[in-house]
Amino acid sequence: MLTLYDYLPSGNGYKVRLLLSQLRVPFRLLEKDILKGETRTPEFRAINPDGRIPAVVFDDGRRLAQSDAILFYFAEGTPLLPADRFGRAEALQWMFFEQYSHEPQIAVARFWIHSLGKRREWADRLQEKWQKGYQALDAMERHLDDRKFFVGERYSIADIALYAYTHVAEEGDFDLGRYPRIRAWLDRVASQPGHVLITQSEFD
Amino acid sequence: MLTLYDYLPSGNGYKVRLLLSQLRVPFRLLEKDILKGETRTPEFRAINPDGRIPAVVFDDGRRLAQSDAILFYFAEGTPLLPADRFGRAEALQWMFFEQYSHEPQIAVARFWIHSLGKRREWADRLQEKWQKGYQALDAMERHLDDRKFFVGERYSIADIALYAYTHVAEEGDFDLGRYPRIRAWLDRVASQPGHVLITQSEFD
Repeated sequence: MLTLYDYLPSGNGYKVRLLLSQLRVPFRLLEKDILKGETRTPEFRAINPDGRIPAVVFDDGRRLAQSDAILFYFAEGTPLLPADRFGRAEALQWMFFEQYSHEPQIAVARFWIHSLGKRREWADRLQEKWQKGYQALDAMERHLDDRKFFVGERYSIADIALYAYTHVAEEGDFDLGRYPRIRAWLDRVASQPGHVLITQSEFD
Repeated sequence: MLTLYDYLPSGNGYKVRLLLSQLRVPFRLLEKDILKGETRTPEFRAINPDGRIPAVVFDDGRRLAQSDAILFYFAEGTPLLPADRFGRAEALQWMFFEQYSHEPQIAVARFWIHSLGKRREWADRLQEKWQKGYQALDAMERHLDDRKFFVGERYSIADIALYAYTHVAEEGDFDLGRYPRIRAWLDRVASQPGHVLITQSEFD
């Protein structure tokens, strides 16, 4: 059976859990506590040289890391990745946007405030995280102006990638009240068949 | 003809220039000066909502942004993207690694020091950039321990993505002297047919 190395509060790990659940791919979950440095050991670096969860190991020993690369692998050939070449590239555009412009601001603010409880220690840096994080949310709100989903007007792994940290952005003290289109899109994603919560570790 | 919006010192733009040159895809280059905010205008945000170069516009008006998504689009069906599903996902793993763990450290240090000449102003933050940037280089050096290229033992867009800022890392005061495998790999990439330099704006 597929093994998923994960840390349950992680939105990056949640992306993989959500997709595998929706595709009904069985997996075994092995937790690595990132707060205890369990992903920075030589043993774990043999699985992912970058020392981060999520990572998956297949029965034959092959290993794959980076949440959005894992999403792409499992979504290929399913309705959750566009079937046309340009649509695949558009999905990747939003997934790279997520990892470059969105996650480093919104997930990190959430981690400092919600996971570590260190809002005061990180007060200066949080100003920059909020400013740049709101820029990312602004770009999403503009894109959703005349769209139901991020690519091709149907639910795809681009939505999964962006949903993971957007739906918990308020844990990083982002106010989603000013983003009506994002909030409507969050509801659409949460109503997809087979949706699981970030707090669920197994699918039913 | 394809239009590439670009800023010539950008490694992210260079990735696209290098791939298009090697694939002999003709393009028209339109420069946007990021130092003058030319990518943050409403007009440019209609091309890329995230307000960054590189971005391409096709003759029929379709638009695509994010350097590594553009690489993926043009490499599909060519020898520069693995033909098998797992190989494609491995290439994406290294491209997401590049955008998440490598570029935000190595490209940003280069930008502050080499492009802006503000080493002193950013002295505190540079310490963190160097520390995390060396972690990324360490991961690359380990991966290249028994490999010639990043994926499938042949040159691919994963190598192009990682080459762009690694080969100019010394402009961000990274010392590549301690990375013999990375230096040998840089030489292998630079010796591929159709290689162009980051300073070349057109291919021959």
